[in-house]
Amino acid sequence: NNWYTNFGPLHERFVTSLETHLGTGPGTVACAASATLGLVIALKASGAPPGGICLLPSWTFAATAAAVVAAGLKPRFIDVDAVSWSLDPDHVRTALDQAHGACSAIVVVSPFGASVDIKAWDRLSEETGIAVVIDAAEGFDSLQVGRIPTVVSLHATKAFGIGEGGFVASGDRELVARVRSLSDYGRLDRKSAELLGLNAKMSEYAAAVGLATLEDWPQTRRTYENLKASYLEILDKLPEFILAPGLKEKWITSTFNVVMPTAAAAVMERLDGHGIETRQWWDKGCHRQPAFADFPRDDLPNTDWLATHVVGLPYYLGMTKQDVNRVVDTLSDVFAGTP
Amino acid sequence: NNWYTNFGPLHERFVTSLETHLGTGPGTVACAASATLGLVIALKASGAPPGGICLLPSWTFAATAAAVVAAGLKPRFIDVDAVSWSLDPDHVRTALDQAHGACSAIVVVSPFGASVDIKAWDRLSEETGIAVVIDAAEGFDSLQVGRIPTVVSLHATKAFGIGEGGFVASGDRELVARVRSLSDYGRLDRKSAELLGLNAKMSEYAAAVGLATLEDWPQTRRTYENLKASYLEILDKLPEFILAPGLKEKWITSTFNVVMPTAAAAVMERLDGHGIETRQWWDKGCHRQPAFADFPRDDLPNTDWLATHVVGLPYYLGMTKQDVNRVVDTLSDVFAGTP
Repeated sequence: NNWYTNFGPLHERFVTSLETHLGTGPGTVACAASATLGLVIALKASGAPPGGICLLPSWTFAATAAAVVAAGLKPRFIDVDAVSWSLDPDHVRTALDQAHGACSAIVVVSPFGASVDIKAWDRLSEETGIAVVIDAAEGFDSLQVGRIPTVVSLHATKAFGIGEGGFVASGDRELVARVRSLSDYGRLDRKSAELLGLNAKMSEYAAAVGLATLEDWPQTRRTYENLKASYLEILDKLPEFILAPGLKEKWITSTFNVVMPTAAAAVMERLDGHGIETRQWWDKGCHRQPAFADFPRDDLPNTDWLATHVVGLPYYLGMTKQDVNRVVDTLSDVFAGTP
Repeated sequence: NNWYTNFGPLHERFVTSLETHLGTGPGTVACAASATLGLVIALKASGAPPGGICLLPSWTFAATAAAVVAAGLKPRFIDVDAVSWSLDPDHVRTALDQAHGACSAIVVVSPFGASVDIKAWDRLSEETGIAVVIDAAEGFDSLQVGRIPTVVSLHATKAFGIGEGGFVASGDRELVARVRSLSDYGRLDRKSAELLGLNAKMSEYAAAVGLATLEDWPQTRRTYENLKASYLEILDKLPEFILAPGLKEKWITSTFNVVMPTAAAAVMERLDGHGIETRQWWDKGCHRQPAFADFPRDDLPNTDWLATHVVGLPYYLGMTKQDVNRVVDTLSDVFAGTP
């Protein structure tokens, strides 16, 4: 089309296709160059005042904390729930009453794609006036769209991956329009900057890959479903391994995380000895990473426990049932004490 | 390659190809998802402390001001030189002594691709300890690489356009390594975040387009050279139109800006009446745009004069000598008073 970015025809088709896929209707999706940038502009579009305190979990990928800083907010790490691995709206409400009354924004993270209670967060935001943004980076398939914005990643590591990319979805069409404007230097008419934005636009090339990926999605999704079923079938017999929240639900994602009965590091080393590569997707939590170590935080016992016990098992398209069995058999052997 | 981002093989090939093209050697280029993000991470990598004052021209595209804010700095607009359309290192030195001693960073803008005196800025940065970054968004062809970082845009509107993208070039390899790390959440080993970065990575798709564009570059460059020659040939006879700085030099760019003898708005309207679309690429200067109107600033007489007199004439690949003649003839007619 001789049009390579700046909301070109493929970009607009991809936006519409996502809105159709989600069933949310026109004006509810804004694309972004990455989910990180999507978070930055979603926070700005939600009206979180620069310099305000933003509560967020430390149990998340570094992108969440980096985005909060880039949005001009002051991050404060709070602990997640030990079962849901996410911020709990009721706990946060209590914390707001007791200690964090001055906060002006909250980023809630969907842990590895698990659904969050969007209605509870919509209510909390409406009742307190605090800007709430959902970081559902891995949540393409579990996405529930509310009034507050949800940010989804389309990064290569995700089940719906297009290289680099992301989108913001919300039922609040005025907010989505602000997100779109903020992705183009806050311009509304592509002339003067009305809002303080930056360049977070998705290019036509990325949108073209997005459209092709959406066409393949039913097939991709089925493949992930089968892979997950292989894992669940065998892990169901091994109750000592606690699955990441929601893994038994219908949505699919691109990672498979399990709580180990003992320290993750030792288990990973043993598996590595058997040629099985595992991952700690969220490292030791953000607060243990040098870039974020000085940020203020609450006590984070659940985060520390998860960070030292959760392991991401091998999980990729092309993985066979035999591969899965080998991983889980080796894992069982490790804990049976037979190396 | 089944590798779609995160410094994949095409990304690495594109980085090396740019280093070869520039003749600057390994470790001197870091790619970014856009020049805006390149500016943000170049400012951070240069050690400008968050909250510090950053001097910048208002005579620039909105991206410059947006990037300064996103880097956590406090922008202050200062005036450009009336002839070079850029910050003058000697004037800035005087200003630093007199009024702006507390500033911690300066963004110098290459106006529409014109070269800047990189050695003078290298010296100023070294002698004062102030972080200086060159925004050479349109400067792909005029680029001179110094110690301080220069940021080039590869946006679709540029002569070397790949959709969305940019790169940072510097002879300071440690600085370039920090820029690269900051583009990947400040990770050095792709594990823990060591620096406070964000996601500013160029994807494999964008790098692939970049490699193809670089192959075509000699041809693209020749076409722009011919187009520029057509304009210069006819405008040389019309001294009442002052050309943008450096347009008679060897480098090429994707815009052709001219200072009108009278107010730009009226000229543009008249040309529009003849079916000739023109542009004010930098609007009325940043300080006249709502998003930046409240930022502190010096008096900006040169910026105001340029913003009300500079017009971007039609300039695109595929434009014929006849098209150029028609534009300039119409322009002459407008000023001869014969509509």
